[in-house]
Amino acid sequence: MAMKSFVKVHPDSHFPLQNLPYDVFKPRQGGEARPAVAIGDYVLDLSAIASAGLFSGPILKNSDCFLQPSLNKFLGMGRPAWKEARTTIQKLLSSNEPALRDNAILRKKSLLATDKVNMLLPAMIGDYTDFFSSMHHAKNCGTIFRGPEDPIPPNWFHLPIAYHGRASSIVISGTEIIRPRGQGHPTLNSPPYFGPSLKLDFELEMAAVVGPGNELGKPVGVNEAADHIFGLVLMNDWSARDIQAWEYVPLGPFLGKSFGTTISPWIVTLDALEPFACEAPKQEPRPLPYLDEKISKNYDISLEVQIKPTGQEYSSIVTRSNFKHLYWTLTQQLAHHTINGCNLRPGDLLGTGTISGPDPESLGCFLELTWNGQKPLSLNGSTRKFLEDGDEVIFTGCCKGNGYKVGFGTCSGKVVPAPL
Amino acid sequence: MAMKSFVKVHPDSHFPLQNLPYDVFKPRQGGEARPAVAIGDYVLDLSAIASAGLFSGPILKNSDCFLQPSLNKFLGMGRPAWKEARTTIQKLLSSNEPALRDNAILRKKSLLATDKVNMLLPAMIGDYTDFFSSMHHAKNCGTIFRGPEDPIPPNWFHLPIAYHGRASSIVISGTEIIRPRGQGHPTLNSPPYFGPSLKLDFELEMAAVVGPGNELGKPVGVNEAADHIFGLVLMNDWSARDIQAWEYVPLGPFLGKSFGTTISPWIVTLDALEPFACEAPKQEPRPLPYLDEKISKNYDISLEVQIKPTGQEYSSIVTRSNFKHLYWTLTQQLAHHTINGCNLRPGDLLGTGTISGPDPESLGCFLELTWNGQKPLSLNGSTRKFLEDGDEVIFTGCCKGNGYKVGFGTCSGKVVPAPL
Ligand SMILES: [Ca+2]
Ligand SMILES: [Ca+2]
Ligand SMILES: [Mg+2]
Ligand SMILES: [Mg+2]
Ligand code: NI
Repeated sequence: MAMKSFVKVHPDSHFPLQNLPYDVFKPRQGGEARPAVAIGDYVLDLSAIASAGLFSGPILKNSDCFLQPSLNKFLGMGRPAWKEARTTIQKLLSSNEPALRDNAILRKKSLLATDKVNMLLPAMIGDYTDFFSSMHHAKNCGTIFRGPEDPIPPNWFHLPIAYHGRASSIVISGTEIIRPRGQGHPTLNSPPYFGPSLKLDFELEMAAVVGPGNELGKPVGVNEAADHIFGLVLMNDWSARDIQAWEYVPLGPFLGKSFGTTISPWIVTLDALEPFACEAPKQEPRPLPYLDEKISKNYDISLEVQIKPTGQEYSSIVTRSNFKHLYWTLTQQLAHHTINGCNLRPGDLLGTGTISGPDPESLGCFLELTWNGQKPLSLNGSTRKFLEDGDEVIFTGCCKGNGYKVGFGTCSGKVVPAPL
Repeated sequence: MAMKSFVKVHPDSHFPLQNLPYDVFKPRQGGEARPAVAIGDYVLDLSAIASAGLFSGPILKNSDCFLQPSLNKFLGMGRPAWKEARTTIQKLLSSNEPALRDNAILRKKSLLATDKVNMLLPAMIGDYTDFFSSMHHAKNCGTIFRGPEDPIPPNWFHLPIAYHGRASSIVISGTEIIRPRGQGHPTLNSPPYFGPSLKLDFELEMAAVVGPGNELGKPVGVNEAADHIFGLVLMNDWSARDIQAWEYVPLGPFLGKSFGTTISPWIVTLDALEPFACEAPKQEPRPLPYLDEKISKNYDISLEVQIKPTGQEYSSIVTRSNFKHLYWTLTQQLAHHTINGCNLRPGDLLGTGTISGPDPESLGCFLELTWNGQKPLSLNGSTRKFLEDGDEVIFTGCCKGNGYKVGFGTCSGKVVPAPL
């Protein structure tokens, strides 16, 4: 079926009828926060559609899930509700369906140009976890910090390593990132210094948004884990490498990460990503039974990082990677997260960890690209070891279908100077 | 001033008029969650007092902060509101004030016997951080895991080390703790095993409850940090040592902790603790300026851990420690947490880390008390290397005043078997 919408969608758009990603927005001219899906250069206000009674399926008919300032309620309703919403919205926006197409008043009310609205965080994020699922990233970091002999820690191939991140400082794409201050300790024989981070970095990641949670003490099986994942966003896990290197033994990253984490607004659902599913890398040794899944699935999502220095007209591509390079799958991450009984809640965010590919041009952070600052990167005239004030970092992610794209839009943030 | 309440308070009670700790409760017979303070064997329902118009000070007069199902709003209002509330409630409960004493209807409505109510989590906890502030604990853990030479990592004396914890699995005292399952790896030459944790431990901690937060990018100075702390609770940071030991390199503790963290219900305010303030240990080397505070304050809070094995009538004391042993102060912890710009929110929880004292009888967890299971502890007839199913772990904390106590009540949890 070649699906077409009555809303004009450019073939290069990330948001055709096949995508329909979710977020929450506020009109620039004022009004409450409410859920929407993206279609071409428009957002479809789901509160207006719900209020018009157009969600007529059995699950959503009497629900107020789209009359909320966040997606948490809808996330918690699970896959049957998500399927019903997708079917309803796809039909409503299709070129041969008159209900919205021929209703000028409702169209005006519910279809708003994207440049007339502000995108907000899609959900209240109760907890944010960051994994470490790219083997290439683990190998490069291990080599840089601990040397080339056995760079990957022995636990890495047995479990998807992760740490708890800071939920309060997760911000939406477009938010400026204030360079953090903190302690560093470059030479072992002098005392630590204090000041603005000298090694500010980005980390190219994606993150899963949790749908229905689980009760404390009730793990989610790996083969049921996909039903607990609503979709994916792009994520920049900004990292201050000097702060991180000095603080992280023995309890892991803390202030080197918690000053800000940027996510893209649009949650692309697993349903929209399904045509781009691909086999995940073979795992050797075979994982323990609780991580050994029937279908081991990744997605073919092209990722790109551009940097636009302040005052320059053009941005430069600094890396190209792909979600399919991840060793541990999303479902293994989620099953592992709950195997001890830990409870997830709707809206929780599970970051994949930096997505580095096998090639030197596919590394997901400056730490790897410049080998901890030893090999500066040329950037359209200037060079970079790490990020400088004024640099804007722009991630894009996109799946390429036959004649259409399913994309994530961008995840961007500009670095501004540390406070005096 | 010898303050006395018209409510009868036993001299051994943790909750005299000098204390007035805050929590949220629900009557057992049904009703909404609402804030209260404890007085002797009663809770004073603050929603009833507010509805009766008895908060007549300028800040609280027109506020709905006590008509909420959590304390977050009150926490965010800051010290002037807390002072006004304390003054009002102390006066209202005092023996020479007739307003409540002589109003039988309001007394019946607002003073409920503690055994007729269920205590709930006092606040929605957006983020939970756990520090590592006891030097004795850091030294013992380092010796056990990395040997007696330089057991304390070089960063430890320069900054209060911490990691992000899991907020979703924080539970109120009395909640059963389900033994977590997970991977362990006791011998380096065999593959990891999977099963119920074989080394389940408690950690004797306290935690600060954050009052007003700070904006992202705006650190809180160490000399202003006390105004961002409402009070303290007891905290048991349950830990599965076998899971933790295998997973924690290089990103820190994760599933070894996230299956459950228990806090005591009553938040004892810094105002109530002020008479028990004492000097914190001298810090050498002197901390960097952002951590160098004018007044370096600890509190003299006696702490005790008892274990009651299943089926036994009596519990045994396994350790006695004191909050005053902490090296890094609460205010240093909070200032460090925000120095990179990280934002705190009202209700956030900052755990101190395990509070071990200098003596063998004052160690704050089984890991230290039994030296990682090498020296089993005698327990009224049986022995323990780590916790067994059915063990109830009971923390108490108390400050001893002249003729009265300011206490925390108990923080308890019983271990139940892992799921099959
Ligand atoms: Ca990361
Ligand atoms: Ca701890
Ligand atoms: Mg981050
Ligand atoms: Mg815990
Ligand atoms: Ni670590």
